[in-house]
Amino acid sequence: MKHKSTHKKYMKKALKLAAKGVFTTGANPRVGCVIVKNDQIIAQGYHKRVGGKHAEVNALSRIKGNDAEGSTVYVTLEPCSHYGKNPPCAEALVKAKVKTVVVCNDDPNPLVAGKGYHLLKQAGIKVITGVLSKQGIDLNRGFFHRMKTDLPWVRCKMAQSLDGRTAMSSGESYWITGDKSRADVQFWRGRSGAIITGIDTVLLDDCRMSVRPESFSKSNRKIPHDFDKKQPLKVIVDSHLRIPLNAKILHKPNQVLMVSTVDNNDKAKKLKSLGVQIKVMKGKSGSVDLAQLIAYLGKQQINQVLVESGATLAGGLLNEGLIDELLVYTAPVIMGSSARPLLKINIEEMSQRLHIKPISLKTIGKDWRLRALIIK
Amino acid sequence: MKHKSTHKKYMKKALKLAAKGVFTTGANPRVGCVIVKNDQIIAQGYHKRVGGKHAEVNALSRIKGNDAEGSTVYVTLEPCSHYGKNPPCAEALVKAKVKTVVVCNDDPNPLVAGKGYHLLKQAGIKVITGVLSKQGIDLNRGFFHRMKTDLPWVRCKMAQSLDGRTAMSSGESYWITGDKSRADVQFWRGRSGAIITGIDTVLLDDCRMSVRPESFSKSNRKIPHDFDKKQPLKVIVDSHLRIPLNAKILHKPNQVLMVSTVDNNDKAKKLKSLGVQIKVMKGKSGSVDLAQLIAYLGKQQINQVLVESGATLAGGLLNEGLIDELLVYTAPVIMGSSARPLLKINIEEMSQRLHIKPISLKTIGKDWRLRALIIK
Repeated sequence: MKHKSTHKKYMKKALKLAAKGVFTTGANPRVGCVIVKNDQIIAQGYHKRVGGKHAEVNALSRIKGNDAEGSTVYVTLEPCSHYGKNPPCAEALVKAKVKTVVVCNDDPNPLVAGKGYHLLKQAGIKVITGVLSKQGIDLNRGFFHRMKTDLPWVRCKMAQSLDGRTAMSSGESYWITGDKSRADVQFWRGRSGAIITGIDTVLLDDCRMSVRPESFSKSNRKIPHDFDKKQPLKVIVDSHLRIPLNAKILHKPNQVLMVSTVDNNDKAKKLKSLGVQIKVMKGKSGSVDLAQLIAYLGKQQINQVLVESGATLAGGLLNEGLIDELLVYTAPVIMGSSARPLLKINIEEMSQRLHIKPISLKTIGKDWRLRALIIK
Repeated sequence: MKHKSTHKKYMKKALKLAAKGVFTTGANPRVGCVIVKNDQIIAQGYHKRVGGKHAEVNALSRIKGNDAEGSTVYVTLEPCSHYGKNPPCAEALVKAKVKTVVVCNDDPNPLVAGKGYHLLKQAGIKVITGVLSKQGIDLNRGFFHRMKTDLPWVRCKMAQSLDGRTAMSSGESYWITGDKSRADVQFWRGRSGAIITGIDTVLLDDCRMSVRPESFSKSNRKIPHDFDKKQPLKVIVDSHLRIPLNAKILHKPNQVLMVSTVDNNDKAKKLKSLGVQIKVMKGKSGSVDLAQLIAYLGKQQINQVLVESGATLAGGLLNEGLIDELLVYTAPVIMGSSARPLLKINIEEMSQRLHIKPISLKTIGKDWRLRALIIK
């Protein structure tokens, strides 16, 4: 039996490969695969996009003849067992007569969920699971969450001062954080299937909410290998369709979904004629039904959503339990107690306060970034 | 010439020794000394308290005969050149015929300030300065600051939620942060000559503001070697002497200084009869003159002050430019936009926001702690 640290070493490599698909896998999980024989990597592969080959098959295709026989395969997700757009990977591994399969995460997809392991074990292949599973979960939070709940993983990005403020009382707020933080945000946009913002943010900032891969290099990260031109869906919560027709965010109208309580007035007609999609999702209180919106995005097979809004929409989503993760950039400034709050949410007693679980705290340029899960 | 990394190695050791005096040196600087010969430490020492021997003399006293001859002496502060409670260390080093003196920080004390170096160089001793100077400055911020400005270094401790709140709107606030953070605060209290709090905090929490060395072990740090029973002065800003006579903070009345706008009413008489000291420091607006208070503490030769107050007093000190450093513990909770702010300070325009310079960001238990300098 191989030593644990060996397994971790190769799984780390497989996770790195999986991460190459972070901007392109869409509804699919990010998966990487490394095939090892006599302590040498003999092939590797990863999943790039829906319809493309799976990681294991990509790796196996690089091996000549029956060289995979007796090898150890490191794959970040349980090999699939079903005929989808590709034949099942578990079957391919059996055919290749590999000796051992080491897996990072089980596949929660009900079409797989243990059946992949079963196929491998039936063929006498040794299966080792759970290696670096935490790292694997973080890479595929959206996919895992959607498989379990039919909902996307909702990450809420915020930028604040040390004292939890986002703008002056007048609304003045442009660029609280530094350019490295803003470049970092580009990564989180790029890996999201949809970005949700509110009409107030659109009116205040006239933001594009687009992914600008050219700004990736400003961040501390390396430029990722695979970024193609597919932009995330831009979702604008706008109860009364107040959006100006010349708003920058509408520059590619077919990438925009307006979520409103009306879709049959003059403004709606004009927007539709531009190519903008409008959905009416009216809640009990008369405003947009946020839970319905999140459920809708899940049905569109969107794994990850990034919320980039003001304190009211973010507070509303949080209040309804619709946010899973916070991505908070804090700038080294103090904006004072009359400035606008981070989250508009009313809590009267300490016992009602919301709890979060930090998963990383990192300095980014002059700012610092907290990633935290909302404890529900 | 020795390699830079060797100098750093021994200076690090000297700084560690210096830090042993962190709770006990009072108005004096914390200084450590390591004497090295043939790449071996032959003696070491540190300064423990006012009136006690200086670090260099402590180290030299551990050497027999003329063994120090030709050695390299690592000392965290420029050796003194004046006759104070001790004879000058520079002279002792000259007598011991050491070859090289490596120093971390220059002594800003006008009685020394370069004269120590001069004495050494005159005797043909090689002097190398500025080794690990940043670390040295952080260890003696109070001493350096007071030597230059006659004012103490004012560090403001705060505990907040992620969204910059300290208490519910009702005032409910008890223990936002975890026990590791609270144990960490004990260290910062212990190394302070005075703690400033406001009457609102006393009325709300009935705090003792005492150093409890027994709780040091709960923090991540090792128990320090030298903690003696001297408690920091407790300074209470209380314009109208509203403090109840049975407040816990008065349990050792001779350790308390009340700063007020009155000292001649009935309450004042009762407080004085308990042994409490009262100083009237009335500002132009009729409330306590905070700048006068900080200047007074400097005159008392207090190097470091810790502010542990509510948002109003902390905001007032910050607004007057009287805070040098923030020590902010953030708990993994969200308290909402109706909760009380971190700092009561009014800023109308982004251009007026205050800038801070983070010097460390650290996870402490479930919380995280930021240390930052106020940029003035």
